[in-house]
Amino acid sequence: MSRIAFIGLGVMGSPMAGHLVTAGHEVTGFDLGEEAMARLRAAGGASAAGVAEAVKGAEIVITMLPADPQVEAVLPEILDHAEPGALYIDFSTITPQTSQKLAREGAARGLRVLDAPVSGGEKGAVEAVLSIMVGGSQEDFEAATPVFEAVGKTFKLVGPAGAGQYVKAANQLVVGGTYALVAEAVVLMEAAGVDASAGLDVLAGGLAASRILDIKRESMLARDFRPGFRIDLHHKDMGIILDAARGAEVAIPMGALVAQLIAAARAQGHGGLDHSALLKVTESLSGRDS
Amino acid sequence: MSRIAFIGLGVMGSPMAGHLVTAGHEVTGFDLGEEAMARLRAAGGASAAGVAEAVKGAEIVITMLPADPQVEAVLPEILDHAEPGALYIDFSTITPQTSQKLAREGAARGLRVLDAPVSGGEKGAVEAVLSIMVGGSQEDFEAATPVFEAVGKTFKLVGPAGAGQYVKAANQLVVGGTYALVAEAVVLMEAAGVDASAGLDVLAGGLAASRILDIKRESMLARDFRPGFRIDLHHKDMGIILDAARGAEVAIPMGALVAQLIAAARAQGHGGLDHSALLKVTESLSGRDS
Amino acid sequence: MSRIAFIGLGVMGSPMAGHLVTAGHEVTGFDLGEEAMARLRAAGGASAAGVAEAVKGAEIVITMLPADPQVEAVLPEILDHAEPGALYIDFSTITPQTSQKLAREGAARGLRVLDAPVSGGEKGAVEAVLSIMVGGSQEDFEAATPVFEAVGKTFKLVGPAGAGQYVKAANQLVVGGTYALVAEAVVLMEAAGVDASAGLDVLAGGLAASRILDIKRESMLARDFRPGFRIDLHHKDMGIILDAARGAEVAIPMGALVAQLIAAARAQGHGGLDHSALLKVTESLSGRDS
Amino acid sequence: MSRIAFIGLGVMGSPMAGHLVTAGHEVTGFDLGEEAMARLRAAGGASAAGVAEAVKGAEIVITMLPADPQVEAVLPEILDHAEPGALYIDFSTITPQTSQKLAREGAARGLRVLDAPVSGGEKGAVEAVLSIMVGGSQEDFEAATPVFEAVGKTFKLVGPAGAGQYVKAANQLVVGGTYALVAEAVVLMEAAGVDASAGLDVLAGGLAASRILDIKRESMLARDFRPGFRIDLHHKDMGIILDAARGAEVAIPMGALVAQLIAAARAQGHGGLDHSALLKVTESLSGRDS
Repeated sequence: MSRIAFIGLGVMGSPMAGHLVTAGHEVTGFDLGEEAMARLRAAGGASAAGVAEAVKGAEIVITMLPADPQVEAVLPEILDHAEPGALYIDFSTITPQTSQKLAREGAARGLRVLDAPVSGGEKGAVEAVLSIMVGGSQEDFEAATPVFEAVGKTFKLVGPAGAGQYVKAANQLVVGGTYALVAEAVVLMEAAGVDASAGLDVLAGGLAASRILDIKRESMLARDFRPGFRIDLHHKDMGIILDAARGAEVAIPMGALVAQLIAAARAQGHGGLDHSALLKVTESLSGRDS
Repeated sequence: MSRIAFIGLGVMGSPMAGHLVTAGHEVTGFDLGEEAMARLRAAGGASAAGVAEAVKGAEIVITMLPADPQVEAVLPEILDHAEPGALYIDFSTITPQTSQKLAREGAARGLRVLDAPVSGGEKGAVEAVLSIMVGGSQEDFEAATPVFEAVGKTFKLVGPAGAGQYVKAANQLVVGGTYALVAEAVVLMEAAGVDASAGLDVLAGGLAASRILDIKRESMLARDFRPGFRIDLHHKDMGIILDAARGAEVAIPMGALVAQLIAAARAQGHGGLDHSALLKVTESLSGRDS
Repeated sequence: MSRIAFIGLGVMGSPMAGHLVTAGHEVTGFDLGEEAMARLRAAGGASAAGVAEAVKGAEIVITMLPADPQVEAVLPEILDHAEPGALYIDFSTITPQTSQKLAREGAARGLRVLDAPVSGGEKGAVEAVLSIMVGGSQEDFEAATPVFEAVGKTFKLVGPAGAGQYVKAANQLVVGGTYALVAEAVVLMEAAGVDASAGLDVLAGGLAASRILDIKRESMLARDFRPGFRIDLHHKDMGIILDAARGAEVAIPMGALVAQLIAAARAQGHGGLDHSALLKVTESLSGRDS
Repeated sequence: MSRIAFIGLGVMGSPMAGHLVTAGHEVTGFDLGEEAMARLRAAGGASAAGVAEAVKGAEIVITMLPADPQVEAVLPEILDHAEPGALYIDFSTITPQTSQKLAREGAARGLRVLDAPVSGGEKGAVEAVLSIMVGGSQEDFEAATPVFEAVGKTFKLVGPAGAGQYVKAANQLVVGGTYALVAEAVVLMEAAGVDASAGLDVLAGGLAASRILDIKRESMLARDFRPGFRIDLHHKDMGIILDAARGAEVAIPMGALVAQLIAAARAQGHGGLDHSALLKVTESLSGRDS
């Protein structure tokens, strides 16, 4: 069992830190919210007065933060106070470029860094069934396995530093794009007077089948857009995808169009809805606002 | 058992007509290719000297033709020679607009018309496991059930005349778009030095999962583009989708972009490859031709 | 001076036929609307009871019709009744494919066919300052010069049969696309709190300058969308452009996106407004409906 | 006449600083390149050992740097050493967000900040005919007029801090998009066997007319892509445009597609060519590489 510092005890980080306590680790957390830290103490962990205090003496340092700026903000303190040789796992979804910077600057201080963005959402975090995409070395990946086992169901080393973020980006690109395609299929069928429910059943039974069609087609047809994963978050992720494509020097016209449709969903005021609410943009384009 | 006229004995029509013979129907076929007709005779059917002779006296008239012009070309003879009260099932993938014209003009001559495009390809036709999307009336759909059972596995009434074509269009839109999204995911990961095979495994295990990822990701990574369903055919289908959207007065920006990527695949000389070869266009855009 | 048959005396055709009368030609018109024919008689022309009567004995046959179906509808009568050796000028904006069919079938009957779509709109027709893009042979182009001089200001032979339509398609693609770009520029600046009028002045003074910025930026900023050239017509033209691209086996992703934005304008109910009303779609995408 | 600090003496900054010397100002420059500073001294200016030394005592501080990171890198020294009350003009093309940060942090130290990106390129800088888009207050704009007059031909206050960058972004969006549209028009016409030169002449004479058609159509048809303004720089600018749209919470699908086409040009190896080389991407999409 390890001494673990856990920075960022939000919707995702809080249950994850709890699972690590349950698994027998000695977890010291830090978050700007006092309530979040109280929750961790109640669960059997400890809390610290700041990042520096949390990471001091830890064998494993974990961050689970909203976006690049928050990760960049805590990095200097981690670099200054973490023990040389410590394993630093960043579960945040950020740009591959920032993950690579973490790895580079961490290595300069003797830290072993993994980027490990997750998918599965709040539900996956609570149920400890997250999917984890890991970038870094095989050796560090193996060292992190007890952590991954405590919070996730599947986890995979997909390449060197930043690779986890690239795979997360690719995942969000395909997810956002699939919603946009299903939305166009729905609007086309409904506008044509087709029984869209029967139509989607046919799609779900053939080569057009997808997890999204399986679990979301009924709620989409019912215009039930309670989140789930919010448009605002997917909008943030599309920004990462475009930065990732820029970094990798590739052109992704489909991804770019999806990014604009999601930006439109947000601009139209649907940022707090589930990402399946992309359907509302497709409807609005055809003057069929629901 | 019924007397059936079967017009169009190509790659799809030939095995379908054969299954109808096997099911005990009295099938008279017509095709411009003499070989195709010989095959039907060998299978126990009969052949006719032309459309008029084939449809005369038939209880059920079937067409399975490549595109709108071929269907429009045989329509006058069907209208002139089919028995009033006969059921006319068009299995061709054509525009909803043409299917609606068939229904309208057929009804004026006392024919009961169904549009019934299929998915599943040559393999589905040979194994009699096609998916069939049907537009027309409930009564005619029921009357056609023995035919659908002989050639397909699933079949569904999805709305009035043309509805089958709209659902087929929606299906091809989602299929083409999913290939384009997966292609961008692959190119992004490969360009970034990620283990794309591991990456796609992760995608296939989460919300990005799809039938296409399941059955095509290995061949795509191996650049094995043997058809399967050819780019040329998907290009034809994208034309139908755009006409369908125009007819239904909806805007489908994703579909329009996919149509251009497939047009590019064809223009780049990949028309004879499997539609997963859309990957070659995505690669070319990033200067990564394989 | 020539004996001219003029089929199609609508908003464009009526003033064009009048100019030909003024230029001294003997013009016999036909239109389904009796009023249109009365107008031509009042202007000094004659009217006919049908296409056949109009074209009989004419040295020059002209059509100016709304779209492909109308041109295809009158073609058989023209082919049957026009004099061998007559010059047939089609001013309609239709697909290059249909223009090439006209040329082919006309040649088989000894007609000399030119496709000659125009730009400049009703105003250009009334003032006889149309721009004319001509496809056909040099010899026929020269023979048609007196006609072009009577109705247009600039006219140019741009290639063989169909070439006029391709150039018209290219023109409408650039025009529609420029509106879409200017619309995004306007929405971006307005949303950012920029003085969009000053901003567009800067754009109009540099490499972003265009005829559209010159003559439309004030009306766009004022949301004055009185036509001008209506969205409905540009929507029809975008259909021609996509068919033209399909025929030429090229991919035009920009054109395809513009086509969907214009389709959206129409679906949102703006079909009767000027094509600059594309701005309303761009606004709606950003939740900034005006 | 004023004491001016000029940071960034590159291709653009060098002639601009020279014009300010000529106009009678006392210019002290700084650049990481010693040659650049020697050039300024030869022209009658002075050079400094660093940013701090340059800005100390200056009434006007100017930066002309490649991108956001370089501006952010010199900002702290400017804030620490510039005189309260000094005018700070940033001519760099950067994100509106960074310009707004400059204005905010500058104001906190008593600096009066203008964002003033330019268009016109190296030629415009050398000939002192730049177009300048200015964000800031009317009072500061007036104070900066002698500087603008020395380096530019037209300059306009377009709104508050950041507004200059938004207008520059809108400009580059329209410019990049117009190239993409003209490229599709060219490829469509050439593939169809049309005389593209005659066709573009027609376009340039009507509503499709633009500065780009005027000055670039011959070089595009001749595939002469010597820069001019390089693809690499336009790629950087498209990144700014997308960030600007994100900041303003608007969706710009046309801009996003243009950005990917320019990214493709770069990925295909054309980063060093003129931005009109976007045509090469359009050609490659249609298998017509030249």
